[in-house]
Amino acid sequence: MKKNELKEKLHEIIFEADTPAGKLFDVVLLIAILLSVIIVMLESVPEYSKLYGRYFNIAEWVFTIIFTIEYLLRLYSVYKPMKYATSFFGIVDLLSILPSYLSLIFAGTHSLMVIRGLRLLRVFRIFKLANFLNEGEVIVKALKASRAKIMVFIIFILIMVSIFGSLMYLVEGQTNSGFDSIPRSVYWAIVTLTTVGYGDISPQTTLGQFIASIIMIAGYAVIAVPTGIVTNELFVSKKNSKVSTQSCRYCSLEGQDPDAIYCKHCGEKLND
Amino acid sequence: MKKNELKEKLHEIIFEADTPAGKLFDVVLLIAILLSVIIVMLESVPEYSKLYGRYFNIAEWVFTIIFTIEYLLRLYSVYKPMKYATSFFGIVDLLSILPSYLSLIFAGTHSLMVIRGLRLLRVFRIFKLANFLNEGEVIVKALKASRAKIMVFIIFILIMVSIFGSLMYLVEGQTNSGFDSIPRSVYWAIVTLTTVGYGDISPQTTLGQFIASIIMIAGYAVIAVPTGIVTNELFVSKKNSKVSTQSCRYCSLEGQDPDAIYCKHCGEKLND
Amino acid sequence: MKKNELKEKLHEIIFEADTPAGKLFDVVLLIAILLSVIIVMLESVPEYSKLYGRYFNIAEWVFTIIFTIEYLLRLYSVYKPMKYATSFFGIVDLLSILPSYLSLIFAGTHSLMVIRGLRLLRVFRIFKLANFLNEGEVIVKALKASRAKIMVFIIFILIMVSIFGSLMYLVEGQTNSGFDSIPRSVYWAIVTLTTVGYGDISPQTTLGQFIASIIMIAGYAVIAVPTGIVTNELFVSKKNSKVSTQSCRYCSLEGQDPDAIYCKHCGEKLND
Amino acid sequence: MKKNELKEKLHEIIFEADTPAGKLFDVVLLIAILLSVIIVMLESVPEYSKLYGRYFNIAEWVFTIIFTIEYLLRLYSVYKPMKYATSFFGIVDLLSILPSYLSLIFAGTHSLMVIRGLRLLRVFRIFKLANFLNEGEVIVKALKASRAKIMVFIIFILIMVSIFGSLMYLVEGQTNSGFDSIPRSVYWAIVTLTTVGYGDISPQTTLGQFIASIIMIAGYAVIAVPTGIVTNELFVSKKNSKVSTQSCRYCSLEGQDPDAIYCKHCGEKLND
Repeated sequence: MKKNELKEKLHEIIFEADTPAGKLFDVVLLIAILLSVIIVMLESVPEYSKLYGRYFNIAEWVFTIIFTIEYLLRLYSVYKPMKYATSFFGIVDLLSILPSYLSLIFAGTHSLMVIRGLRLLRVFRIFKLANFLNEGEVIVKALKASRAKIMVFIIFILIMVSIFGSLMYLVEGQTNSGFDSIPRSVYWAIVTLTTVGYGDISPQTTLGQFIASIIMIAGYAVIAVPTGIVTNELFVSKKNSKVSTQSCRYCSLEGQDPDAIYCKHCGEKLND
Repeated sequence: MKKNELKEKLHEIIFEADTPAGKLFDVVLLIAILLSVIIVMLESVPEYSKLYGRYFNIAEWVFTIIFTIEYLLRLYSVYKPMKYATSFFGIVDLLSILPSYLSLIFAGTHSLMVIRGLRLLRVFRIFKLANFLNEGEVIVKALKASRAKIMVFIIFILIMVSIFGSLMYLVEGQTNSGFDSIPRSVYWAIVTLTTVGYGDISPQTTLGQFIASIIMIAGYAVIAVPTGIVTNELFVSKKNSKVSTQSCRYCSLEGQDPDAIYCKHCGEKLND
Repeated sequence: MKKNELKEKLHEIIFEADTPAGKLFDVVLLIAILLSVIIVMLESVPEYSKLYGRYFNIAEWVFTIIFTIEYLLRLYSVYKPMKYATSFFGIVDLLSILPSYLSLIFAGTHSLMVIRGLRLLRVFRIFKLANFLNEGEVIVKALKASRAKIMVFIIFILIMVSIFGSLMYLVEGQTNSGFDSIPRSVYWAIVTLTTVGYGDISPQTTLGQFIASIIMIAGYAVIAVPTGIVTNELFVSKKNSKVSTQSCRYCSLEGQDPDAIYCKHCGEKLND
Repeated sequence: MKKNELKEKLHEIIFEADTPAGKLFDVVLLIAILLSVIIVMLESVPEYSKLYGRYFNIAEWVFTIIFTIEYLLRLYSVYKPMKYATSFFGIVDLLSILPSYLSLIFAGTHSLMVIRGLRLLRVFRIFKLANFLNEGEVIVKALKASRAKIMVFIIFILIMVSIFGSLMYLVEGQTNSGFDSIPRSVYWAIVTLTTVGYGDISPQTTLGQFIASIIMIAGYAVIAVPTGIVTNELFVSKKNSKVSTQSCRYCSLEGQDPDAIYCKHCGEKLND
């Protein structure tokens, strides 16, 4: 009995955020994740690494141990540990502590750095704390609803950059070293269509600049499409949430229009 | 009789995607097109071309033969072969196999490369497979409806870049080699207005930078116009497609919800 | 009488586009303007100017004489010549022919080039021909309605770039030659906020890159504002144009809602 | 009595803009602020500073004295001086005059320049004059309403650039000096995602260019989210402000038009 009480108490603190203790835990964890991410970032700067390398190393291990304890407590306090361990955040939690331990077994500069990079995924844990931010759900819902349309849009963009890229390879490839292969030209087309425009590769011939102009204006106008899609989905998902809270007394249909007088399903009069 | 059955069977497999065989055919074809496009792209990379040139050549001919058989089967199985052959995808299908055969007759490096580039149009065949993606139609419908508005917008953009381009030619042309002719200056104005900003040409004088600033802010604000147009068209086309065409027999109210059984205005039963 | 008939006939051809003759005149004029603009542009390219300078010169004078005759006919055929001469397109028409004549009196390379640039304004005449494109009016109406909001937005943008620009002057000015004065830094801030990003000036210090990141993300998010404004105005202006064509039989109020049964002004029943 | 009259008169002129005197005061002040900001900017240009440094200095002190008198008059004429002094514009007003006086005590080139930069905040006073621009409020209201959603969006962007940035550090860090630390790579990811694209740092390896392409297309599509959010908020805030709060006493229909006298649903008279 006592053990279950402890479990429940822990679950409330670690997984929920509606008690003062749970809220405090979440905020402290958020700060710890942020600090650990910042340390990984600073460690990659050669100057800081030389000067403070030892302190960074200690801080890293402190955070690793804290996150390991947290991970074990999560596994202990949850009712179905396997379901947590195989969930998205369960895997991210494990991946964020694993690299430190692996670095003890596998030496070597390069592989070590890969491991450090993976630890940045800890940042994703912030999302788990963001469940009090209901707003995120509205955005995700709108993006999910417009998933198919956005896929079609991205496929269209990819075809466009493939064709324009190979066209530019034919036009500029002979004289301009920036367009010396189709993949490189396609990369340039993506840089141009998305209006990023690095300028490391740019057309030199008049014909090339003419084609580039067409891609730019196309990219400038085409951006309207995903914007239009998401705006409409957001509008619809908001409108749906404004649906009347009335439900029919006879057929129990919910989702009546706010201006409905009679149930649109069974024809009975709705409550005033 | 037997021949017709074969024709119909073939048509079902090649042109339709609602039987398991038809679906399988479409997926296999999609993968073949993608592979063939990737091979054309990789072949253009000098290093790969040197090492694997022979294998690329073989793979190209294999795909060409497969697509040729497919094209002939399409011509055979369709009831009106001429209508297919002159349709958009019929022409694209032919163009995607022609270059390989033409390369046998006409030698020469440069013309050969043009032919390879054309083969990329095979990618468009993906669209033919995309008829199960109904979402694309909504986008195309919205773009078609806003065609006239977008044309006016693009004409306006072209006039703007012409005037700003020649203004910059006058301001910077004497001192800055990037603005040595009006067409080049217009190219720069397009690069700037669309917020691409390569940086290969950029104003040096104070007056030039001032005019550039105006173009940038204009371009930044003006992008709102195509976005507004497409968003509204998407909204309208969605609204129209989601409203039942039924009208109440008793109160004549139109705009009934698609799932309505009774008129939401007078409570009378709607037609089935 | 006869003179008036001629005047009216000319007016119909030159100013209107609803008769076959009027339509033909507009199309021919459109082509002439486009050709004359293209010649001005090509003339600015040094290579072409050397080779075909003489032919360009002749073509220019031909177009100037054609446009002069057109201008005089317009003045003759219109009922109130002064009103036309002082209208926007009247002034543009005059400005598009004046530079050629002025170049006879005032010599000098540079001033001559300014004159050539001004002739590009002829392009604006295309708009006069665009009155059959009703769509343009909807856009212009929406832009006019959102004028005040867009002004506030642009003022806000200008204040933002001033503050961020002078901040960057303090941060990077000592070490980075690109930020050697506040106006230059403000120019850079505009290049960055509008997501143009030439790269001719870019921050080098860590603090400078941090501030630049803030400007970029701000610029990326802030673009939503003009888009939102124009989208809504377009939506409203479209909605208004969908208002019922019914007017009340009793109080003559127009602009009834499409779903209204009773006049919202006097309470009388509307026609079905 | 007389003192109070003076106070009230002053308040009317300085703080309000609905009398001719008040309007004149605001316009003159606006011009003075603009001039003083322009002088600070021009002073930072080395050439102008050398030539006109003395005149700039005099003009600066003239403006400082004018703004000091204005600040004291504001404190005098307002009923609750402390509330004004601690308000946003009270603090900005003080900060815009303080630097000039502080420059008398603290010498030193660098610190002096910081002070000059702060004076640019005077520009914010323009907003105080913009209260006749009601339109600004609509934008601010829409932005405030979408604050939570925009925060979630920006956090998501920051996580995305952190992960992509460290990924690029691992991929390009060994060979490309532009990606020599994670913070620098994250800075590059921001430059790319926001479609600014300076080009001072750009990927060189094929894998790096592939990842960069993903970031660009993501950034190009993701911009739809803030736009969708703001567009919807503007739509809602406009709709709410344009719909009468009246509901029919007979049929309880809400959402009456603001100019309606009779209920458009049942024809009964609405309350005044």
